[in-house]
Amino acid sequence: MAGSTFAVIMAGGSGTRFWPASRTLRPKQLLPLVGDAEGEDDPSRASLLAATVARIAPLVPPERILVVTAKALVEATRRAVPELPAENVLAEPAPRNTAPCIGWATRTVLARDPEARVLVLPSDHHVADTQGFRDTISRALDAADHAPLATIGIKPTRPDTGFGYIETGAPLEGLAAASGGHVVARFVEKPDLVRAREFLAAGNFLWNSGMFFFRAKEMDASIRAYLPELADGLDRMGQGANAPKLDEIFPTLPSISVDYGVVEPLAKEAASGRRGRIAVVSGDFGWSDVGSWESAWELSPKDQDGNAAPAGTVLVDARGNLVRATAGKTVALIGVDELVVVETDDAILVMPRSRAQDVRAVVDALKATGRAAKLT
Amino acid sequence: MAGSTFAVIMAGGSGTRFWPASRTLRPKQLLPLVGDAEGEDDPSRASLLAATVARIAPLVPPERILVVTAKALVEATRRAVPELPAENVLAEPAPRNTAPCIGWATRTVLARDPEARVLVLPSDHHVADTQGFRDTISRALDAADHAPLATIGIKPTRPDTGFGYIETGAPLEGLAAASGGHVVARFVEKPDLVRAREFLAAGNFLWNSGMFFFRAKEMDASIRAYLPELADGLDRMGQGANAPKLDEIFPTLPSISVDYGVVEPLAKEAASGRRGRIAVVSGDFGWSDVGSWESAWELSPKDQDGNAAPAGTVLVDARGNLVRATAGKTVALIGVDELVVVETDDAILVMPRSRAQDVRAVVDALKATGRAAKLT
Repeated sequence: MAGSTFAVIMAGGSGTRFWPASRTLRPKQLLPLVGDAEGEDDPSRASLLAATVARIAPLVPPERILVVTAKALVEATRRAVPELPAENVLAEPAPRNTAPCIGWATRTVLARDPEARVLVLPSDHHVADTQGFRDTISRALDAADHAPLATIGIKPTRPDTGFGYIETGAPLEGLAAASGGHVVARFVEKPDLVRAREFLAAGNFLWNSGMFFFRAKEMDASIRAYLPELADGLDRMGQGANAPKLDEIFPTLPSISVDYGVVEPLAKEAASGRRGRIAVVSGDFGWSDVGSWESAWELSPKDQDGNAAPAGTVLVDARGNLVRATAGKTVALIGVDELVVVETDDAILVMPRSRAQDVRAVVDALKATGRAAKLT
Repeated sequence: MAGSTFAVIMAGGSGTRFWPASRTLRPKQLLPLVGDAEGEDDPSRASLLAATVARIAPLVPPERILVVTAKALVEATRRAVPELPAENVLAEPAPRNTAPCIGWATRTVLARDPEARVLVLPSDHHVADTQGFRDTISRALDAADHAPLATIGIKPTRPDTGFGYIETGAPLEGLAAASGGHVVARFVEKPDLVRAREFLAAGNFLWNSGMFFFRAKEMDASIRAYLPELADGLDRMGQGANAPKLDEIFPTLPSISVDYGVVEPLAKEAASGRRGRIAVVSGDFGWSDVGSWESAWELSPKDQDGNAAPAGTVLVDARGNLVRATAGKTVALIGVDELVVVETDDAILVMPRSRAQDVRAVVDALKATGRAAKLT
């Protein structure tokens, strides 16, 4: 099928789970996965966003990579990926969840190539096996030629309750068996541990990776069909980084995720046979959503005692710790195991790795005091 | 008995147990006990040395307080106690343990008042009950009028193995019973836990506080008798902060503690009846030698969860922690108990309070690497 391939990278997040490293104006995707600045040839040491761009660069040239971010982050985002044309960084005037983001990017792609295929990627994930990732992307793009929408499902390695799951159905018709495409039987919300274990045992459940693959005009048609208010708004707003009525219209677009607004209704129609079924391609390329400091520890290089710490850290009877500190700061740990110790210019966090999900409590506490807004 | 009272404060220490706050050029006695700089009316928030001077100020005026320190620390020491005349800060050209220190200070006192009484105090201890401390000092000075040497023994509150002990003997003759002076039956080295428990149960053992009380000429005579080489050296060196041959002679003086060099031989002679017996006065005034970060936590004000932390520290499910940080740094603790978290301009230490004795291992490790000499 004809048409060039575009990538849309969603980089509007402002998560709090990496406090104190992450802040409203320095979100996770603009942070390095590994703290120290050595090894500049590894883009994940610059930022997760830069690593995402570098990962797909052999498949999609910079001029066809779009990044959608928040208005407040646009300059920092452009600095993070200087190889992209400035007009390829789309700045949302207000956060409206993923459907308006993808709708706007899709219109922008369509204006450049009405036959384009699009891959939508999160900006803040980690991939260990880059070649495996690219192979899976290619298969997902193929699958998107045989379905209105394709996604990548990650082969689960543990009964994780932090992800949605995809139950796979029959092999996808029209696609080579080797490509591994299947019809999506159903999308499942984040399960409890009992169900997650059942999914893992069943063998035909995959983690929902949040990646989408589609022909631009298919997505545009789906939005027109399922989110007509969004389609109308986009009609009036226009496309591109400098859409004529961006500031006026974008904040009024319906705030809804592409999962609820497009994927679910599409899945229902597919089940009733009215439209083509959603495709899922399974992937196994060392994927992580880098969801917490615990993940950062898992993904970081470690010494023989399991410590992920900058060179020069003094470790006395210390195991399994994650240490990050500003340049020139020597950290010493004595007799502590499995801690997270993160220092920035203005803050220090100390907690067990197992409490990584509770970082939000600190950010909430800081916001509640009303002091030092820049701390959050 | 006639003669004015002088205080000699030994402030030459360069301990490593408060790293990273303490350094060679910023030893414990020049540090505040409590980290933040608020409450300047409490001298222990300025430095332990300043607190020591303030504690005895009602008993001894500044012009009769001498401080003996190391040459490298003399300027910092003078800044810490600006109320003392500069010539009252004696700077040792080389560390020679306590006998030369006390010998030199005693000669310096004798030159000002041949009938003087002297109290020798460590510079880095903490006292909770200042009035009780002063009362005990007065009793010890009285006792020193009836013995060649007096000391204060601290009523033990636990079987501590970190202190030497003093076994008390008969009440001291010639002293009012109310003053509580006793003859020292014997000095005991740091015991093991079994013996320390026996001492505590026996009831007639006290902790050796390292404070000495004597008439200056008695001490000078004892040094002449038991450490003639030191006495000869002091003869040639001269007295005062600007002793004529200080730099030449002091480094050649015998390096020996006053305990081994003077107190022990004196105790033996006393046992054989040749000289007067050593006196000990028991004290119970909330004394601590502030020997580690654990002690610092014990002595610091704490919140209802036992955390000793600066205002603004974010504590989520955290108990019994000691936190110190530089101004402008917000520390957040999640789900950690009984940790020490100390940050300075160039270092961070994290350890359980129970590992406070192991701080030396970090300093040793840093010295071994040879990097960043200023870190130690």
